[in-house]
Amino acid sequence: MPGSSFGKLLVLSTFGESHGPAIGGVLDGFPAGIKIDEDFIQSQMDRRKPGQSKISSQRKESDQVQILSGVFNGISTGTSIGLLIPNNDAKSKDYDHLKDSYRPSHADRVFQQKYGHRDYRGGGRASARETAVRVAAGALAAQIIPKVKVQAYVSAVGPNSLNPALDLDLSQIDAHISRCPDAPTAAIFEEAILKARKSGDSLGGIISCRIRGVEPGLGEPVFDKLHANLAKAMLSINAVKGFEIGSGFAAAKMKGSEHNDAYNEHGERTSNNAGGVEGGISTGADLFFRVAFKPVATIMQDQQGLNSQGEPELIKGKGRHDPCVVPRAVPIVEAMAALVLADHYLLNRSSKI
Amino acid sequence: MPGSSFGKLLVLSTFGESHGPAIGGVLDGFPAGIKIDEDFIQSQMDRRKPGQSKISSQRKESDQVQILSGVFNGISTGTSIGLLIPNNDAKSKDYDHLKDSYRPSHADRVFQQKYGHRDYRGGGRASARETAVRVAAGALAAQIIPKVKVQAYVSAVGPNSLNPALDLDLSQIDAHISRCPDAPTAAIFEEAILKARKSGDSLGGIISCRIRGVEPGLGEPVFDKLHANLAKAMLSINAVKGFEIGSGFAAAKMKGSEHNDAYNEHGERTSNNAGGVEGGISTGADLFFRVAFKPVATIMQDQQGLNSQGEPELIKGKGRHDPCVVPRAVPIVEAMAALVLADHYLLNRSSKI
Amino acid sequence: MPGSSFGKLLVLSTFGESHGPAIGGVLDGFPAGIKIDEDFIQSQMDRRKPGQSKISSQRKESDQVQILSGVFNGISTGTSIGLLIPNNDAKSKDYDHLKDSYRPSHADRVFQQKYGHRDYRGGGRASARETAVRVAAGALAAQIIPKVKVQAYVSAVGPNSLNPALDLDLSQIDAHISRCPDAPTAAIFEEAILKARKSGDSLGGIISCRIRGVEPGLGEPVFDKLHANLAKAMLSINAVKGFEIGSGFAAAKMKGSEHNDAYNEHGERTSNNAGGVEGGISTGADLFFRVAFKPVATIMQDQQGLNSQGEPELIKGKGRHDPCVVPRAVPIVEAMAALVLADHYLLNRSSKI
Amino acid sequence: MPGSSFGKLLVLSTFGESHGPAIGGVLDGFPAGIKIDEDFIQSQMDRRKPGQSKISSQRKESDQVQILSGVFNGISTGTSIGLLIPNNDAKSKDYDHLKDSYRPSHADRVFQQKYGHRDYRGGGRASARETAVRVAAGALAAQIIPKVKVQAYVSAVGPNSLNPALDLDLSQIDAHISRCPDAPTAAIFEEAILKARKSGDSLGGIISCRIRGVEPGLGEPVFDKLHANLAKAMLSINAVKGFEIGSGFAAAKMKGSEHNDAYNEHGERTSNNAGGVEGGISTGADLFFRVAFKPVATIMQDQQGLNSQGEPELIKGKGRHDPCVVPRAVPIVEAMAALVLADHYLLNRSSKI
Repeated sequence: MPGSSFGKLLVLSTFGESHGPAIGGVLDGFPAGIKIDEDFIQSQMDRRKPGQSKISSQRKESDQVQILSGVFNGISTGTSIGLLIPNNDAKSKDYDHLKDSYRPSHADRVFQQKYGHRDYRGGGRASARETAVRVAAGALAAQIIPKVKVQAYVSAVGPNSLNPALDLDLSQIDAHISRCPDAPTAAIFEEAILKARKSGDSLGGIISCRIRGVEPGLGEPVFDKLHANLAKAMLSINAVKGFEIGSGFAAAKMKGSEHNDAYNEHGERTSNNAGGVEGGISTGADLFFRVAFKPVATIMQDQQGLNSQGEPELIKGKGRHDPCVVPRAVPIVEAMAALVLADHYLLNRSSKI
Repeated sequence: MPGSSFGKLLVLSTFGESHGPAIGGVLDGFPAGIKIDEDFIQSQMDRRKPGQSKISSQRKESDQVQILSGVFNGISTGTSIGLLIPNNDAKSKDYDHLKDSYRPSHADRVFQQKYGHRDYRGGGRASARETAVRVAAGALAAQIIPKVKVQAYVSAVGPNSLNPALDLDLSQIDAHISRCPDAPTAAIFEEAILKARKSGDSLGGIISCRIRGVEPGLGEPVFDKLHANLAKAMLSINAVKGFEIGSGFAAAKMKGSEHNDAYNEHGERTSNNAGGVEGGISTGADLFFRVAFKPVATIMQDQQGLNSQGEPELIKGKGRHDPCVVPRAVPIVEAMAALVLADHYLLNRSSKI
Repeated sequence: MPGSSFGKLLVLSTFGESHGPAIGGVLDGFPAGIKIDEDFIQSQMDRRKPGQSKISSQRKESDQVQILSGVFNGISTGTSIGLLIPNNDAKSKDYDHLKDSYRPSHADRVFQQKYGHRDYRGGGRASARETAVRVAAGALAAQIIPKVKVQAYVSAVGPNSLNPALDLDLSQIDAHISRCPDAPTAAIFEEAILKARKSGDSLGGIISCRIRGVEPGLGEPVFDKLHANLAKAMLSINAVKGFEIGSGFAAAKMKGSEHNDAYNEHGERTSNNAGGVEGGISTGADLFFRVAFKPVATIMQDQQGLNSQGEPELIKGKGRHDPCVVPRAVPIVEAMAALVLADHYLLNRSSKI
Repeated sequence: MPGSSFGKLLVLSTFGESHGPAIGGVLDGFPAGIKIDEDFIQSQMDRRKPGQSKISSQRKESDQVQILSGVFNGISTGTSIGLLIPNNDAKSKDYDHLKDSYRPSHADRVFQQKYGHRDYRGGGRASARETAVRVAAGALAAQIIPKVKVQAYVSAVGPNSLNPALDLDLSQIDAHISRCPDAPTAAIFEEAILKARKSGDSLGGIISCRIRGVEPGLGEPVFDKLHANLAKAMLSINAVKGFEIGSGFAAAKMKGSEHNDAYNEHGERTSNNAGGVEGGISTGADLFFRVAFKPVATIMQDQQGLNSQGEPELIKGKGRHDPCVVPRAVPIVEAMAALVLADHYLLNRSSKI
């Protein structure tokens, strides 16, 4: 399969450019008999859509998902689900000046090198607009595994981090536009983002994700380890530069006697440095991973770009962009996690007779 | 495809348990007309094999790879390549005591939960022994892309790190048994590993990987971004807990104005925070990524494990293991990187007419 | 991949039910740089669409294909192509009486058994309406391989067959509504179909397909033989019961000394019993295969069906159907052949270095 | 996946040339908990192996399959199964004269054209020797679905056909070396084959296959129809030129009112023209299909071949070959059918929640 498909038994194939008429996709392998909660799908779309707060892009998209097939009388039929999301507020004129220009740290130049022809408007296929389809599909996937609870939240914005020692109330994630569940930290994050916007700059950040209710046994040996597929899923999201599960990079500094998750007298693991996977297979403990996002490449400052003749060119920031992507990326991380988990749940149905 | 296969056009399918008669695999999609350098394959095998130094496991395996098909008169024929590596020095008796026991932070318990039946000897399919096949296949894959130079090295062992400001001579990687190219740091790493062995403990570490000579255009939009597949490849290696490309987790702390890789008057990027990929597609600059390994789970100290009745059980360390896996994991990281790059190189042949 | 996707490097994923709002799909892996001929696509759609003649179904669909992505300024960009075809003339009321009924030789009952829930209107996902998306995608695929000329035609309708000894002028296929290029035979076919319609019955038939201009070397050894993938492609079309390539079933009756395609003094094969493939790989000679279609299951006569309680039930023919499917199936056969050939053309780009 | 792999959830990847050291493969996705009957595997191997009777090739191969992994203490573990079959009686010298020659109706020339380099000994990868691995894997696959009974038999040899009106006793298939269950017809088939051998010629033939005990619901809508995958499986076998299911090509001549499988008062279908599938999904009735084989290309008569300079060259028949392939192909047809059915059985586990 070429690059616009994801998954093994539950497969999402997507299409669409930022400034084309619509984006959409096909979600195939979705089992029959599931009552589809369209409100949940739309609520996740709304958490991702632009224009939702003062710290996000001001592009206005209602992002109403049309389910064109695979659901009949509100219940899934087992056949492929067609998804369509029209693009309403594309302002392609904003991009005319970029026809022959490559912006720094954007995909403009590599698309031109790879394909020789590209839709330059708004980043084309490389735009994060395609993630809207992921969110719709992920919200469907989550309904295959209703006992699983995927909760992502913002744990760092630029140099500011959530104190890892805090006891978090994950019900408060959406109480703050920064999607950090701790009120004082959320305030710091929002201020930082607003300050970045004001200075025409952007900020990176980190999203943490905790997944409860995963049964033991999901994940396949060797190459399709559960966390390997989560890593691919996360790194496939625009602007992501790193992934770690459980102890992550901190594990490198530890001794085995510190890191091992020993058992107690109740047969339970006394720690979860593993982050919920052993040998690539879920243990039944919470999955926990972190995803690092780079600062948004589009900034409202002049930068040295390149033109199509290979000459340097001053690029001026235009268009409507997020000064920091992580608040809106929370439902994208959740969607990709749900797609991976539902796929592995279905795969695991064939693990034994 | 189930979990023992990796790749899209260049596909490796592997088999084998640590204490079975042999491990091996099929490498399909390998193009015809390539003169196969068997010495290079064996040299990579030798860099991975146990018993190679005082800081590695003392299991003795010659790890001679048999190429059973797909190569005729020294040149690849385009048909699938069969690989076989006999297991010679399996001491299965060492594992009789683990038949009904689950070691902490091993895959024993989850395999039992997933499959209901497992080969408990030496970790079975979850053993890192399977990575020998990856190394053989990766050494073949590297010959598809001879201009690409993949070089991995050890950049951290436990709390000790290579100074990132050092100007490294990558020709010196194998001059030190720790596979760190800087002599003073290599000495520190080796001492740390020997000290861990002496105390019956183990250490984590980090492998950095630099890849030169990658042409622009490798990687597919959306889900098969080059670094997404590298992430999956790396997280599929035993004991890996994290992956970052280019600026990685440090990117989260940065501003766009600092992070963006602007162009200079020669049309070159003035920095490489991207780590060689923009929008998931190679830029032509060096690929650079880092992989975090947890400390080896087997330690020579008593630990609280679990028995098959769900009762805690004291586990005593036995068997022959590495106190720190990163020196031997260097060729594994290189092999997985070569498989990903060769696969994307072949995929990219269809990107335009 | 689940069942609504087809292909390896050029992958079509489709969605849609006969009476839903729309059908469509994603065509991924389409190379960049191809000037898209939308008129050709629409002309193939028009050859498949219902209501085109007095011997086809009277459902009226304009079957205008919307290309939603992957083409910019008339040229393919290398990114996935979104296809959408609205359903305009669905008369779902015609099917209310079938909610709890299973028609003979339709997929009604097996869908209910497999999924427990189905869209019963017009056959739902099992309706041949989905083949409209195949035709659109196949017309795109044909543009990847412009030197290849795929020409299918009707060679049998019920008991009437085209004389195989005739020298056919394939430019005359569309001169007759039966899509048989020989005028006298075409007249016989049309009369037979009209007679079947009048008697409320239906007829089977055969489509032959000749493909010129295929370069030698397409097809992969062992499982992905070119004709194996053509066979799958054809048998996946609704109502198809058989496939044969070259000499086909007649080969079973022959001796090797008769069947072998020997070479002449110009180095050319003196016969083409192979039908254009040796060992599953194209020889450069014309591909030639035949596809058998059963008579349409819906007839305007009373038949013994079954109800959802497992009781026999008299089914009366309703809805708008073709008395014989082969004239409209000609562009579907061509589309599936083009998808297979274009996919193998792209795959073959990686066969040697 | 490239061409040496077959299947979706149960995937066989094979390797090996006719005159290399060994052939083999990896069978991945095999569920855990199945007691493996190795005797059954070997008995199927023995039915396929050369040298078994006076009407087969005289090459002597014991075809002992080594299971190298995935089975522990006689029970499958859920991990990939490694299969190895050494080549013992390869007489490569017989093929030295073919180094620069292309035999008529063999894959010699197309392999050279496709790859530019080939193993010419005994047909290399294009030899039917690779089917030995399919038989081993198919015999394993059959053990996933123990209620399913796959029985293939020879129904035509050259111009001689089994009378379709006969009531066959399928327990008698192996009572005759021609693998036709009817004694008088078997005698005719054997005589015809012996006569062909004597005259240095070869014969085509047909294998029919009946499959009992298939539950309703196997097969996936649209592209992965059960019979579409059976067609691909059969056409991937060496020398196969045609496939038909149920009424097959005869359906083309019929009216809907004759062909439809109506229901009786017990809710049963009164006929099985469908051949056990409706809409590509199993009905629960017997699957029935027929596979046409061309005469073996190697004959012991002089023929006009081609040399590598493009000049005609007289080819003399050498090597050890079957004068008619169908008796030995019976277990191959069964193996491919078992692989398809077991794969669809596993796929169907995810069809509903």
